[in-house]
Amino acid sequence: MADETAHRVVIVGGGFGGLCAAQALKKTPTHVTLIDRRNFHLFQPLLYQVATGGLSPANISAPLRSVLRKQKNAHVMLGEVTGFDLTARVVQLSDGTRVPFDSLIVAAGATHHYFGHNEWAEHAPGLKTVEDATEIRRRVLSAFERAERSTDPKEQARLLTFVVVGGGPTGVEMAGAITELATHTMRADFRRINPATARVVLVEGQTRVLGSFAEKLSRIAQTALTKMGVELRLDAHVVNITAEFVEVKPDGGKADPERIETETVIWAAGVKASPLGKLLAEAAGVPAGRGGHVPVNPDCSVGAHPNVFVVGDMASHPGPDGKPLPGLAPVATQQGEYVAGVIERRLKGESPKGPFRYRDKGTMATIGRAQAVVETMGFKFGGSVAWLAWLFIHILYLARFENRVLVVFQWFFNYVTRNRSARLITGERPPDVREAPKA
Amino acid sequence: MADETAHRVVIVGGGFGGLCAAQALKKTPTHVTLIDRRNFHLFQPLLYQVATGGLSPANISAPLRSVLRKQKNAHVMLGEVTGFDLTARVVQLSDGTRVPFDSLIVAAGATHHYFGHNEWAEHAPGLKTVEDATEIRRRVLSAFERAERSTDPKEQARLLTFVVVGGGPTGVEMAGAITELATHTMRADFRRINPATARVVLVEGQTRVLGSFAEKLSRIAQTALTKMGVELRLDAHVVNITAEFVEVKPDGGKADPERIETETVIWAAGVKASPLGKLLAEAAGVPAGRGGHVPVNPDCSVGAHPNVFVVGDMASHPGPDGKPLPGLAPVATQQGEYVAGVIERRLKGESPKGPFRYRDKGTMATIGRAQAVVETMGFKFGGSVAWLAWLFIHILYLARFENRVLVVFQWFFNYVTRNRSARLITGERPPDVREAPKA
Repeated sequence: MADETAHRVVIVGGGFGGLCAAQALKKTPTHVTLIDRRNFHLFQPLLYQVATGGLSPANISAPLRSVLRKQKNAHVMLGEVTGFDLTARVVQLSDGTRVPFDSLIVAAGATHHYFGHNEWAEHAPGLKTVEDATEIRRRVLSAFERAERSTDPKEQARLLTFVVVGGGPTGVEMAGAITELATHTMRADFRRINPATARVVLVEGQTRVLGSFAEKLSRIAQTALTKMGVELRLDAHVVNITAEFVEVKPDGGKADPERIETETVIWAAGVKASPLGKLLAEAAGVPAGRGGHVPVNPDCSVGAHPNVFVVGDMASHPGPDGKPLPGLAPVATQQGEYVAGVIERRLKGESPKGPFRYRDKGTMATIGRAQAVVETMGFKFGGSVAWLAWLFIHILYLARFENRVLVVFQWFFNYVTRNRSARLITGERPPDVREAPKA
Repeated sequence: MADETAHRVVIVGGGFGGLCAAQALKKTPTHVTLIDRRNFHLFQPLLYQVATGGLSPANISAPLRSVLRKQKNAHVMLGEVTGFDLTARVVQLSDGTRVPFDSLIVAAGATHHYFGHNEWAEHAPGLKTVEDATEIRRRVLSAFERAERSTDPKEQARLLTFVVVGGGPTGVEMAGAITELATHTMRADFRRINPATARVVLVEGQTRVLGSFAEKLSRIAQTALTKMGVELRLDAHVVNITAEFVEVKPDGGKADPERIETETVIWAAGVKASPLGKLLAEAAGVPAGRGGHVPVNPDCSVGAHPNVFVVGDMASHPGPDGKPLPGLAPVATQQGEYVAGVIERRLKGESPKGPFRYRDKGTMATIGRAQAVVETMGFKFGGSVAWLAWLFIHILYLARFENRVLVVFQWFFNYVTRNRSARLITGERPPDVREAPKA
């Protein structure tokens, strides 16, 4: 059983940051408690594959207990954190449980941000959880089914129009994957409609997609997307989203709005920190940043609490250029490992580590079948070599967890056959896809 | 596009019966419309693997459009059937659409039957749909999580008790799979509880499990289950199911009731025909059988309607011994193919086929790792050879559809590693697993 006298580290969140921190504490004399609302770690970078029927949720998930099974000092606890008492050194859960800690690592991640338009959420789901992904999958596939049932050409065209808001990696990946689904995977599936006539519109507020990448790669990505048939609306601001259309203002929001008739919108435009960010900032007496991010000290600790750390998408950690580090898995991973090191040195009585420094090994985004862009060690390239690199890196990451060989097989099959076998419309809604005609 | 002058065959239901009928009509001069509420065919015999985290829903599903992609005379329509007008030869859908037919094949399958105790459904879900399976998976896995969180030994014991009602193949498979999950897959996953102490109780009203099999095989199965640690309650009647216990009357319901404290009950005791059975029987002017089954003529047609057929679990077709044929995939498959043949011969002006005869190639049930029972061609055997036969047959069946090689890999991995990687707690309920203490 647990060594109750050991230094108690409580970690909130089993994403990249929290899980890597837990694993990095393996050989330390600590009692680690990892609290998450879900019983599995989710490989979010591949969630768009679930949303477009390429992979099953379990293919990109690993049960937290499984991952930490052999780490005897690690304890997984399913529960919802509702508050922090940093003076009493206690984390509060929704059922009233109080979990005491000596060191605390909060890594609760991010959620969708609709920039003050929460009413858009209903019509434009984001992509952060397994349920988000299966809901988007349901909407996308149902739109094709309803178009096949429809006899009204205007309704068919609306149903076969898909709008992705946000031209970052997730938006680019979603736009590419929906296009492939329509033009290749399902091309012979329907009898009345031709899925290849589907329109995929990618709306981005900046003047180029993949704004965090080099301009050359944005150009490569835009060329590839356009060649696939994706319609780009750059420098365009979304001003309204309803059940039947999206309104977009071109020219940086200055021109007259364009109305795009659609019933399927995917939100990939903005993220904010988990609501726990605000709670923690308040408890620590620091001002939460824009989007509820928690400003952290150079060693990832918060305010005047050297034993409380925030890592990953929830933290606002200034990078070398002064801008906050991006919300990427490698940042969270490195921060998690760094904080574990800080705690370990402290327990050993060694001098503190230097400030956290992000080692940027590169970034990549996939666009479609054998199309990706990669930026690493000064190299910037696109095309099939970039795609292979993307595939290789993602498999390496996945392989840290369990039998990910399945994912490789599924990808290989999808690639060869252009099939996507996880095209299931599931969910709580009554399975009748046809809705009453709209007024 | 569709040949609108061809003989219109409408098939309701994309299960084994409906899908095989559609496929068997491939080379006939017919216009086939397959209507289903779901966009995929589900391999129900393996649904218990999804319910216990061994496989993902997509592993045992095939999109109907994918399966019928190359069959140019086949049209898939997503929709919910709400009525039949056999005089006007029209099927009615919930959205008001009327689908005309020349021949109709209804294969809408079966659903759970609580024998007049529908209030049990909430506490004892059955296993028929993908949503059923993920809900049971959520309940089973959450029970272990909640037991780990609990500090009350009585509550822990209750949470670690699983009751399966019904000792047919599905009940035996569920009881075996939950036991394996507890004693092998998750044995090192928890820190406070020992999952291997979980109790799995299998309740069966008859005096033996697998009542439709030979007595020798029931004995083999019972020995194997007992050896695994499953507690058998044979000749025992369930008289009450609540959120906290199941009450069982032993000795054929004559002895005093035994109360089994549990929060996780799985219903595998009874099935009735889809509600469409009653609707169709009424429309055809025949009396629906017990459980809403539709009595059929020897050629699977209904009443005085030679162009209306019922196949699969919805039909009550007398077997050679006078008893209705069992609700098994091979029965549905053979009936679907038979009816396609009846229609084909009629269109060619050939003399009608003889009555439908079920060619019983055998039945099998799996119990656990390398344990199954098989009854075929007079042979009756159990053990690992039976398990290999079971595996082989199921893979053969699955292989009729698309890339099922994944299932084989997953099984192989599960077998070698005793792992079950699809152990995700997902769903619409708030993910906080710990509920308020019960009064």
